[in-house]
Parts: sequence; C-alpha cells; structure tokens
Amino acid sequence: MRPERRGEASPSFLLLESLGAPGDSIALPEQEAHYVARVCRARAGERLTATDGRGGVAQLELLEVAREVRARIESLERHERGREATIWCGAPEGERADWLIEKLAELGVTRFQPLDTERATWRPAASRAERWRRLAAAALRQSRQCWSMEILPPRSLRELLGAPIDEPSRWLAEPEGARAPSLPIRERVVGSIGPAQGFSAAERASLIEQGFLPISLASGRLRSETAALAWAAWWALASSS
Amino acid sequence: MRPERRGEASPSFLLLESLGAPGDSIALPEQEAHYVARVCRARAGERLTATDGRGGVAQLELLEVAREVRARIESLERHERGREATIWCGAPEGERADWLIEKLAELGVTRFQPLDTERATWRPAASRAERWRRLAAAALRQSRQCWSMEILPPRSLRELLGAPIDEPSRWLAEPEGARAPSLPIRERVVGSIGPAQGFSAAERASLIEQGFLPISLASGRLRSETAALAWAAWWALASSS
Repeated sequence: MRPERRGEASPSFLLLESLGAPGDSIALPEQEAHYVARVCRARAGERLTATDGRGGVAQLELLEVAREVRARIESLERHERGREATIWCGAPEGERADWLIEKLAELGVTRFQPLDTERATWRPAASRAERWRRLAAAALRQSRQCWSMEILPPRSLRELLGAPIDEPSRWLAEPEGARAPSLPIRERVVGSIGPAQGFSAAERASLIEQGFLPISLASGRLRSETAALAWAAWWALASSS
Repeated sequence: MRPERRGEASPSFLLLESLGAPGDSIALPEQEAHYVARVCRARAGERLTATDGRGGVAQLELLEVAREVRARIESLERHERGREATIWCGAPEGERADWLIEKLAELGVTRFQPLDTERATWRPAASRAERWRRLAAAALRQSRQCWSMEILPPRSLRELLGAPIDEPSRWLAEPEGARAPSLPIRERVVGSIGPAQGFSAAERASLIEQGFLPISLASGRLRSETAALAWAAWWALASSS
C-alpha cells in the first residue's frame, strides 16, 4: 500500500540477528542473502534497511551480491519500545492459528501467550513454535517494524492468574461485554480471548476478579481468532498515533 | 466465547433460503439437515434459530430428525439493516482472500467488492464465487447475524469511480494516513484497500478527489488483507454499540 521508497531495493527490510556497529562490514545469513539476491534482485551499491527485532534499525549499503551477500552498516538507531500489548489466546478450532500469528505480528502485538483452558488446550507441536517464529519474522519484514512479536510457550489460565500480572490494563473479549472504549490506551495492556468453546464460568469469574474488563468488539459472535484479530486491531488503532 | 443458550441445540443457527411463516412446517434443505442431525446431533422437540440472511430471524421447533429433518416455524421477526459497510478490496498476494472473506463476514461487513487496479487484478475463477459464498454463510451461522455479506464480481476502480458512489463516508487505508477517528460512524461507509502492490499515484489521487479520506490503521505497513481486516474491525467497533 505504501509506495516503495526510491533508491531502496524493494521491499528491502531485513531481519538480522545482530546489526553490528556503523562501519562494520557483514555477511548476510543465508535466508536474508537469498531474499536480497533472488527476491529483491538487489545489486551492489543499493541501500537496505535492517532491524534486529529488538528496537535496532540500521541502514546498510550492499557491497557485494554474489555467492556471498555482504553489506556495510552505514548507521544504526535504537528505538524505545512504544506501547505494549500481550494477547492471552485460547486455542481456536483446527489450524486457524498460523494466519492469526502473522496478522498479530503485522499489527504490532508485543507478545503472544497461547492459553490452555478448561475446555481446550493447545495441542503439543514441536514444529509449531519454529513455524510461528518464521511467520512472525516475515510479518515483521513486511510491516517494517523494529520489534519482533515474542511467542511464548502455552500456559494455563490458572497458572497465569496465580502469578502477578504485569499489565495494568486488562481486557476480556466477549460478545456481551461493554462497547470497547475509543480512548487511546497509553499503558501496557493485555487482552484475554477464550478458546473456540469459550471460557468456563469459573474462568470468566477469575479473570474479572483480576481486573479484566469485558468488552465487545463487534455486533456478532466472533470466532476465537477473529476476536483476537479484532482486539489487536482495536489496540493498534489506539496505539497508531 | 458466548455460553450457549440453554435448551437450544448447539450451535443451532441456521441459514435458510426461505423462512416461511409462523405455523408453517418445513423440510430443511440437505446441507442444513445434515448440520442439524450430524453436527449438532439435535433431536425432535429441540429449538433452533434460523435466518434468511436478509434480516429475518425465525424460532423453529424440530418436529422430526430422521431421513428428513422437519421443523415448525414458531415465530418470525424482521430486523432492519443496521449500519452498512462496503469494502473495495484490491487483490492480496496468493490465496489470502479465503480467510479474509470469512473474517469480514464475521465482523458483519455488508458487501465485498473485489477491486481491479492498475497494478493488480483478481484472477478469474469461476469456483471462487461459490466457495466465498459458502465461507460467508458459515461465518454468518457462526456469528449469529441475520444479514449475509454480499459478494460482488470484480470491478475496476475506474469503473467504480466513474459512477455515483452510494456511501457518503469514504475511507482510504494507507500507512501515511491520518489516525483513524475514534468516533462512531452512523452512516453508510466504504473503505478502499489497495492491492499488494499498492494503488498507483493516479488511482490514489482519483480516490481522494472523490472524497476518500486517507487513514492509518496501525503503526506498521499492513498487507492488503490485514488492512481490510483492520478497517473492518475499526468499523465493527464503531457499529457495535
């Protein structure tokens, strides 16, 4: 949607584990080298932007695009993390989580906490965490953000509610909730989304006891992953100014 | 997320071409009969809710669940259409539209207008319209809404801008736009989303000339389908009260 910046290889936003320091010359790791050479078809002399997903943004000049892709760090900025949002997300039906991860990362959600509940738990899958990290990394490049979405291992609601909760602003998505407020949210926030089967009455009561405010995000009843997206879009709007 | 209503077969929200009149006894069409008998495992005597997707909502009592599934219409209400939203949506990359259709229908979007632009057109696909209608119907059942999302055939931006535009409230999603206003929107609205490659400068200028206001939905750059979702979530929030 945004016109590409002139003089930059397109779309040219890289995610690198380490950015080094201005003046450094680095070899791009295999995946990013492939992306630069084959997808962007960039050439020596072109400029790129890279992030480490931890607030660093570097301008790079390509020195060599051959068997190896080398670049020089021209400048490096460190950005403070802006507003932070955590999503506690119950398991959706079937394989609906992959696109959800991608969309939440694009919308700039800070961390994704899969939530095991009485009625549904996330199926164990060793391959999933790695796949989700790849999806989140691709979304980071796409959306040109400098903070990666953190993806946590599943935890039970009971366990999460039994420990101190970092976020002072707490929300529970449900169709009968109050209308989501339109005010910008300046604090760290956490949104809690039930699994496809919903929270149990006891779980809902525990959440409300811990200060989670029920809000409604649309006039209809939403699937878990749709509620998570709508919640993230609401937060992204509030935090986009 | 919403606890199921007691005494109703679960989830028990049907989409029927015609609802008849109170007192009528009807045979459910094959797909809905299968859903009631096999998915919901409903029994004679149980109550269901059905919509025609055109504002009608009927309460049904199941008379017979056998080779045929028969029900009696107990009551019928007609609902006015609430706020209306149309999305003009440029083609996203790859096969990303299917989930988009489902999510927009869940969020209650009124009509989906695939948009052919200078840089990208929707690939012709005879099977797609039927698949999209099925996805939208499933989302309608899921979200218990009484208006189906209308899915229009692709049209070019030039053609759409050359005709009178019904919606007085017009929005163009782009990263550099103004922050999306937080006020509720009480009018018919249309949101315009560029394809993966973006609108051309000339297209953007034509939209703005026709009163489309550029708004930003998140701090990062969004993919087409994510921008469409975020726009719909923004509208759904405004229209959920």
